[in-house]
Amino acid sequence: MASKKKSGLFAPVAGFRFAGLSAGIKKKAGAPDLGLIVADADVPVAAVYTTNRVKAAPVRLAAKRTKRGKARAVVVNAGNANACTGVAGMKAAKTSTAAVASALGVAPESVIPASTGVIGVLLPAEKIVDAAPSLAASASAEGIEDFAHAILTTDRGPKLARVSFEVGGQEATVLAVAKGAGMIHPNMATTLCFVVTDAKVGSKELASALSEASELTFNRISVDGDTSTNDAIVAMASGAMGGRALKGKGLTAFREALREALEGVALQIVADGEGAEHVARITVEGARSDGSALRIARTMATSPLVKTAMHGKDPNWGRLLAAAGRSGERFDPERAEVALGDVTVFRDGLTTMDAETEAKAGEVMKRPRYEITLRLAEGKGRAFYWTCDLGHAYVSCNADYRS
Amino acid sequence: MASKKKSGLFAPVAGFRFAGLSAGIKKKAGAPDLGLIVADADVPVAAVYTTNRVKAAPVRLAAKRTKRGKARAVVVNAGNANACTGVAGMKAAKTSTAAVASALGVAPESVIPASTGVIGVLLPAEKIVDAAPSLAASASAEGIEDFAHAILTTDRGPKLARVSFEVGGQEATVLAVAKGAGMIHPNMATTLCFVVTDAKVGSKELASALSEASELTFNRISVDGDTSTNDAIVAMASGAMGGRALKGKGLTAFREALREALEGVALQIVADGEGAEHVARITVEGARSDGSALRIARTMATSPLVKTAMHGKDPNWGRLLAAAGRSGERFDPERAEVALGDVTVFRDGLTTMDAETEAKAGEVMKRPRYEITLRLAEGKGRAFYWTCDLGHAYVSCNADYRS
Repeated sequence: MASKKKSGLFAPVAGFRFAGLSAGIKKKAGAPDLGLIVADADVPVAAVYTTNRVKAAPVRLAAKRTKRGKARAVVVNAGNANACTGVAGMKAAKTSTAAVASALGVAPESVIPASTGVIGVLLPAEKIVDAAPSLAASASAEGIEDFAHAILTTDRGPKLARVSFEVGGQEATVLAVAKGAGMIHPNMATTLCFVVTDAKVGSKELASALSEASELTFNRISVDGDTSTNDAIVAMASGAMGGRALKGKGLTAFREALREALEGVALQIVADGEGAEHVARITVEGARSDGSALRIARTMATSPLVKTAMHGKDPNWGRLLAAAGRSGERFDPERAEVALGDVTVFRDGLTTMDAETEAKAGEVMKRPRYEITLRLAEGKGRAFYWTCDLGHAYVSCNADYRS
Repeated sequence: MASKKKSGLFAPVAGFRFAGLSAGIKKKAGAPDLGLIVADADVPVAAVYTTNRVKAAPVRLAAKRTKRGKARAVVVNAGNANACTGVAGMKAAKTSTAAVASALGVAPESVIPASTGVIGVLLPAEKIVDAAPSLAASASAEGIEDFAHAILTTDRGPKLARVSFEVGGQEATVLAVAKGAGMIHPNMATTLCFVVTDAKVGSKELASALSEASELTFNRISVDGDTSTNDAIVAMASGAMGGRALKGKGLTAFREALREALEGVALQIVADGEGAEHVARITVEGARSDGSALRIARTMATSPLVKTAMHGKDPNWGRLLAAAGRSGERFDPERAEVALGDVTVFRDGLTTMDAETEAKAGEVMKRPRYEITLRLAEGKGRAFYWTCDLGHAYVSCNADYRS
């Protein structure tokens, strides 16, 4: 595929080459399971890692290496999380990244590892060592699609979001490539996300932008801290578009583009929730504070009763209100209002639901994406949180899949 | 049924009469949906109610009335929660309890209401008003079985636990009658529990004993605060066995009997989890403190990934450890040990799982009830939490049932 010019979502991002191939880590023969992003030089890097107390070896190694603020490459394997694998696991992470570094002719500590797949099984480092030369050789500007496929596990398909923005009359690009199936919370399926940009962004600015953008996107589909052993978001800025390091308006445009790109892939992850058929944005308005609104929205979004009601297309405002009620936040339910799409189903302590309203609300809930709004009369606090429905496919997937 | 002498679980408890009949509140014709417990006189009462911000009218009225420390009767309806029903809902709760009080010839404020069923639909008070005379007339010492059936909703069957204890050579009884299907957290199905004893216990002592016992039982199957709009536990002590109010050793014996009775019905509720086939007690040992152990055990017990693994009989120690890891509590995973029953599956940062161990652990997970143990090396903190598996039946029940 490297010989074909790619456009659109898979078009090159200046300063980076990509690869993806099968190293035989996944059980299924020939399934792509090893991906590479390599920059033309050491470039600014920033990352956000799982807050889980149990951190996989690659996460610990990656965190140490990204602290330097510069990196050259990211190597990602799927099919094995290399988590809870002790001293041997750390050795496997070091051995495999060293092999990739050697094949690329770069310093080992400039290669950032990421892994996803089964927990508790030692990473077969020798497979990555064997594949490293062809992985490095196949890296090309056209390899984004191969990379995007190589990092998947239970995903229905690859997840990419591409956002352009202008700096001083020039077009810059932010590309996010992610994996993660399952509404992350209450699931804990691993989320990986890799971001590349040709904009010139300093390490510090990149770290600050990534922290803000992940808070407004990935942390709105997953409870902060409620994470798997392997979650990681890694961003690299090649600066290949030239010019000075972004600041002021240019930096603001970059931050906004980064947020948009992360939101794009985060929503693809929600929509790929194991068996999910509906995605809803739950917005809470009129809370005591933004923080209070967020805690209420999160409690509603992560309630299995709310999520099963979504699955049943049941305009069950009682479950929505009861979930809000147990959030620990103060509000007066008698002055609350609940709407599904633009259909108000509860107001002034009473349901407004007659047969016609119920039918209308039911129609809203048939949509693949819709809004749920809880309006309170406590203050000006406002926040949103994304969620999806919980159906039989979720149970099948998680009762049968060893993660 | 009132004419038949009952023994065993349904034997009378001195000082109380019971009734249960169909008042037509449930859709299904003839289904029992109205229950009554009446004491021979005003007796000490204590109660624990939902901490949900959204409280049903009967909960608000009951909380006000039990504050007096004395009560005469409890009237419970199933099929309608009378929650989120505004001013009319409170009026319905008052009207219906007043009718029962009038039929019994007692003061209205001595009658404690409880409701469970659909949210947001006004309680049809007139049906309770109509049924009140026959409800009062049918109350008898032999009516416990009728009462136990009348308070059920999606339960597979009635839930009772009876514990005897000795005070000064005399046998005293604690009887708990409950409803609640579904592992309460992450579900929020309403839990109701009514406790009667013939022991002589003061209001204060009863309140303190109930608070402690519910913490060690109901709060170990459900996150405190993560409750429905209608949850209630109400205890009454007739003192019909005579003698002085319990203190010292007698009071200790009562407290222990009360805890045992609540544990009995709480575990019946867990085992009646919607579609649940397995109940596990998750014990965390060696944590930094008991509180830390409880928070870890609770995070593990309420993890959908752990619960679906239980459903799949998958000895997935990785999910158990990862859930513990996101509890927010500090521990060193490299020194953690995980056991299913007496089969150790993880030790010293590595799995001990070979084919034989996996088969043994899988056998443990086929049992209807088993132990999951996480041993840490942080301190002496210890706690347990009950959980059940999450299967397809849970999804079917909660996607289709309007609660």
